Amino acid sequence: MKLQVTQENLSKALSTVARVANTRGTLPILANVLLKTTNNRLSIAATNLDIAITEYCGAKVSEEGSITIPARLMQDFISSLPPSVISLELDDNKLLINTDQYQSVINGVPAEDFPVMPAIENGKRVTVPGAELKRALQQVVFAASSDEARPVLTAVYMHSLDGTLHMAATDSYRLASKTMGKIKEPVDLLVPVSAMQDVLRIVHDFDDPVSVTYNEQQVLFKAGEVELVARLIEGKYPDYPKLVPKKFANVAKVKRADLVNITKVSSLFARESAGSIKVTTDENKGTLNIRSIASQVGENTASAEGNIQGSGEITINSRYLLDALSAFHSEEINFTFNGKLEPVVLSNPNEKDYIHLIMPLKS
Amino acid sequence: MKLQVTQENLSKALSTVARVANTRGTLPILANVLLKTTNNRLSIAATNLDIAITEYCGAKVSEEGSITIPARLMQDFISSLPPSVISLELDDNKLLINTDQYQSVINGVPAEDFPVMPAIENGKRVTVPGAELKRALQQVVFAASSDEARPVLTAVYMHSLDGTLHMAATDSYRLASKTMGKIKEPVDLLVPVSAMQDVLRIVHDFDDPVSVTYNEQQVLFKAGEVELVARLIEGKYPDYPKLVPKKFANVAKVKRADLVNITKVSSLFARESAGSIKVTTDENKGTLNIRSIASQVGENTASAEGNIQGSGEITINSRYLLDALSAFHSEEINFTFNGKLEPVVLSNPNEKDYIHLIMPLKS
Repeated sequence: MKLQVTQENLSKALSTVARVANTRGTLPILANVLLKTTNNRLSIAATNLDIAITEYCGAKVSEEGSITIPARLMQDFISSLPPSVISLELDDNKLLINTDQYQSVINGVPAEDFPVMPAIENGKRVTVPGAELKRALQQVVFAASSDEARPVLTAVYMHSLDGTLHMAATDSYRLASKTMGKIKEPVDLLVPVSAMQDVLRIVHDFDDPVSVTYNEQQVLFKAGEVELVARLIEGKYPDYPKLVPKKFANVAKVKRADLVNITKVSSLFARESAGSIKVTTDENKGTLNIRSIASQVGENTASAEGNIQGSGEITINSRYLLDALSAFHSEEINFTFNGKLEPVVLSNPNEKDYIHLIMPLKS
Repeated sequence: MKLQVTQENLSKALSTVARVANTRGTLPILANVLLKTTNNRLSIAATNLDIAITEYCGAKVSEEGSITIPARLMQDFISSLPPSVISLELDDNKLLINTDQYQSVINGVPAEDFPVMPAIENGKRVTVPGAELKRALQQVVFAASSDEARPVLTAVYMHSLDGTLHMAATDSYRLASKTMGKIKEPVDLLVPVSAMQDVLRIVHDFDDPVSVTYNEQQVLFKAGEVELVARLIEGKYPDYPKLVPKKFANVAKVKRADLVNITKVSSLFARESAGSIKVTTDENKGTLNIRSIASQVGENTASAEGNIQGSGEITINSRYLLDALSAFHSEEINFTFNGKLEPVVLSNPNEKDYIHLIMPLKS
């Protein structure tokens, strides 16, 4: 292997893929990135066996070849170099990296030992605009579970309903539900949330269409020069649309920024009680109030003015409320509920494509 | 106690003093701040028994009094509030904190239980411009030791010599030495580096004169409305000026930014060897070179062009070199040494008031 590549391209590719490489696993080679020449391009890939990311970058290849080298060292090293042309040359299993100012040798492991994810056969394919995918992921990924005891809840559920794409995530304490655009193929995918977090990084500055190819076992997201393959999670996702109440006894329309502020302050007093806050709506005064009590330390009551229908109270987790509020764009938010036993629903008439549920705590 | 104070003033004072409060100590009250009215001002104080910081802020006091309350909760709470007038009122040992939007109660502990640092009696006093004190501290504090086995090395040494103020710090592996302005009183103070780090925070935006009052046991730094008292460390500081070589066999004048860059990159390959890098000067080529070797991983050689007198080599710690380089202002730096056994001296003819020594490692 012998080639020249710009520092900018190589550094960008390494920053995209190297995060998937894992130094703490049982298989040491998974801490490496795979460098491989293909058709006058250099592909840089990393995998943790569940997810694989590959980025291609332009290169002047004078000798084909491949090698794997430690991901973290390579990324830290290349990103520290000034913008310049970098020459890479393989000498046995040693990668020689040279620029005007730097001469380095990094010891590699042969590419043959690197595990490669199988290609997707008989796959179906849909495309989603990058900006739409990014927005949807920002609104749902944080609601997925990290508890491996219920694998389906560690997925983001991407599915079609009446020709429209939907995305949902829930950890059983809260639920984020997003309606996206029209698609032609039926979709029913349980994508690991860790893969979706990587997709979110990849589409962060990518507005062009992202193609999503899938079969029963795997899904491939392709955004420009970057490809991410993930193993799908098996199982049946909860029938979440039926969890969403349709009518509400208590409706508070308040400024979103106000609700964020009083929730933040209230959460300081809710540290002892694991974030538990009591929200009350007062139709007469026209206020939504939050009360939090730390028995040893003190207590706090905060209020926001708004348009209030129905007086009532409900106890919820302040962190879930803050997470949910930051997923909306609108200036106003509807905080709606039916007594203290049913979920709170957060919504906004101007953002009909997104709703967020929070289950109540015992009070 | 009953008073009104602006959120901005109270929040600023809390952010200055609360850092000294310690929740992990054996004396629970040290996790509190002391609030006390004095002459239509509110004083906010915290101490860890070695250091005490007090900030005074203007207040509309309608009833004198004092109380101590949890520092972290109070700081987090007040800093989260919008700019407004805050009313504080004591009800037994409960502090009632009210604004338009928030009604809070924080449980306090009586002020009588709060340990107060003794006043400095028979003290001498010098003044130092805030900007000069800030710059000097930035250049020396990082070189002090954190190893309590040799307490004097955990001090920043502030002393006079021929009517001039000097500041020095060393952990025995490196030494930072700063010459400051003229002073009238003799000074010989071993100030704990932790106190000096707090002084640095206090003078960060303070350009007016800082008064330094001291006796045998204590020192008081006074910068505007902020006072910091620290216990002095007992002992005799090493006679550090005699450690500084006066002549050098190897002198490399290089761009400081170049040396920072190649040291950073080299340090990536020096992780296995605890930061050990070999610096060589090559008079013929006119380069300063850094070589670092990670036996399992690889190796790197980097060079910077410069004006080189004398070829030689020395092994030092890359982190110490980076720390030292960031303490200078100048565009150029002189990297000077005498063979591999004597210390490296970093200096610049345009910054004669500061020099930095780094002891060599065995190579």
